[in-house]
Amino acid sequence: MNPDSTTSGQAGRARRLGGVLAPVLTPFRADLEPDPGRFARHCRWLLDHGCAALAPFGTTSEANSLSIDERERLLEALLEAGLPAERLVPGTGCCALPDTVRLTAHAVRHGCSGVLMLPPFYYKGVSDEGLFRAFAEVIERVADDRLRVYLYHIPPVAQVGLGPALIERLLRRYPGAIAGMKDSSGDFAGTREVLDRFAGAGFDVFVGSERFLLQSLRAGGVGCITATANVNAAAIDELYRGWRSPDAERLQEELNAIRAAVEQTPVIPALKAILAHHARDAGWATLRPPLVELPAARREALLAELAARGFAMRGLSG
Amino acid sequence: MNPDSTTSGQAGRARRLGGVLAPVLTPFRADLEPDPGRFARHCRWLLDHGCAALAPFGTTSEANSLSIDERERLLEALLEAGLPAERLVPGTGCCALPDTVRLTAHAVRHGCSGVLMLPPFYYKGVSDEGLFRAFAEVIERVADDRLRVYLYHIPPVAQVGLGPALIERLLRRYPGAIAGMKDSSGDFAGTREVLDRFAGAGFDVFVGSERFLLQSLRAGGVGCITATANVNAAAIDELYRGWRSPDAERLQEELNAIRAAVEQTPVIPALKAILAHHARDAGWATLRPPLVELPAARREALLAELAARGFAMRGLSG
Repeated sequence: MNPDSTTSGQAGRARRLGGVLAPVLTPFRADLEPDPGRFARHCRWLLDHGCAALAPFGTTSEANSLSIDERERLLEALLEAGLPAERLVPGTGCCALPDTVRLTAHAVRHGCSGVLMLPPFYYKGVSDEGLFRAFAEVIERVADDRLRVYLYHIPPVAQVGLGPALIERLLRRYPGAIAGMKDSSGDFAGTREVLDRFAGAGFDVFVGSERFLLQSLRAGGVGCITATANVNAAAIDELYRGWRSPDAERLQEELNAIRAAVEQTPVIPALKAILAHHARDAGWATLRPPLVELPAARREALLAELAARGFAMRGLSG
Repeated sequence: MNPDSTTSGQAGRARRLGGVLAPVLTPFRADLEPDPGRFARHCRWLLDHGCAALAPFGTTSEANSLSIDERERLLEALLEAGLPAERLVPGTGCCALPDTVRLTAHAVRHGCSGVLMLPPFYYKGVSDEGLFRAFAEVIERVADDRLRVYLYHIPPVAQVGLGPALIERLLRRYPGAIAGMKDSSGDFAGTREVLDRFAGAGFDVFVGSERFLLQSLRAGGVGCITATANVNAAAIDELYRGWRSPDAERLQEELNAIRAAVEQTPVIPALKAILAHHARDAGWATLRPPLVELPAARREALLAELAARGFAMRGLSG
């Protein structure tokens, strides 16, 4: 891995991230308890196989199916296992202000390079004023100059989105703390607007799917934080590094084909099934309710289609 | 208050609730910390003025803006203040299984008559199988014969709804634990289907708005758990008690007019503004982000309209 893809200096700014980040799958034992050992091994493999950094406790991580205590303990387990804090961007945004403050302060205290912050997502149709106050309270209460917030815009799941007016207001008020965003809207026109308006001010936009990686890099984006990086980071990183090369369009198409195969089924169960298969570790397929594992027939069809496309997970051991 | 409206015996069943329940507003101090004293006083006033029981930690309570610790401490504060556990039905459903288990076990251990349980609401489009497992895991882990679960169906907010097929499966598997539901769908045709199919089996349906109270009582419902009970419980209770009287239609229309006035603005800020005004306690107007207080002009218009309708809150002191 080229360290340049992880961090780069800029006058007056803290460390900046770029490249491919995985919202790391969270392994559960048969009794539905998280498994810190499997988790750390998967994180290590990801950093060794294409990920510039990791975003544990994202949507793909079933983070909102974990208690706050569990999230803190799992992050500490990664650090104890030797994963570098500067390559971790944990998700910390919860419905309840004290929970978001607690997880964010915990991540900053442990040296994480940033946090990925969902808006409070229970109430729907909330105002930009309310969302501004929610983020502002967290930043004010954490009160740490090291804090770097990546806003997490994922309206298909959270239903509560983060638009340009809110971003502008947050950037103006907290230029040091607001580092960028993960845009999982699936709407590249919106992504482009955000890039056009804010990328020049050092607001770093990661797309939420590698499907938009080439387009976003051409428009000033800095990378992607994508579910499929859990199983395909090396190939996605190849496009990230080679996006100016003549091969870029072909690489993008190959990524899209793998992504399309995965998206034929619910993505989180699909990724866990793929990892269980390639790591020869059936336990990886376990999910916490309300998510459920893939039916056997769909799992077999998915694995067969990926095999037919030459998909592999190099260096993976169970 | 007639105790008959609170509980009634039935062979082979635990205590059953009926009547008007308030999802109790949660007071916050200026620093956004919950205020247990104000909370207990409001609960006492509600039980003395029309509420058969209370559903603290509902949507109207900003429950999902509270941490698990805060919810436990506030419930304990109510009990320490002398509120009777058998008239409490706290909300306990969270996104994360361990949180729901913890809050539910806590409520049962303290003698609460039931719990109001949201489904895990972060992931959208989840399967009935996943939702069944989510509720089943909670019931199995709490493992207490006293547990009485009221399913909380509020698709406009949670976006994750609970349909008849799921209810049927849960009732069949856990006939003792599944007590009923709060239906905040706003779709009375759906409510009627649930009543027709399950009320005869002792599944107690509360509507989520007094707008449907008369209809639902005529169709076999047992009452309502409604935001506006925070300020208008006595009048709602009058309809509950008099639903067979010749006055019933007029009482329903009067309730609808008050409800319509409140619904002209965001309901939770509106209710807090009304309470702040009538209790002469401006602190009641405070909300946690992402919710925000009503603009002054809308608040004044709301209070004026209610005054013009003769709205009052008897016996309320600040």
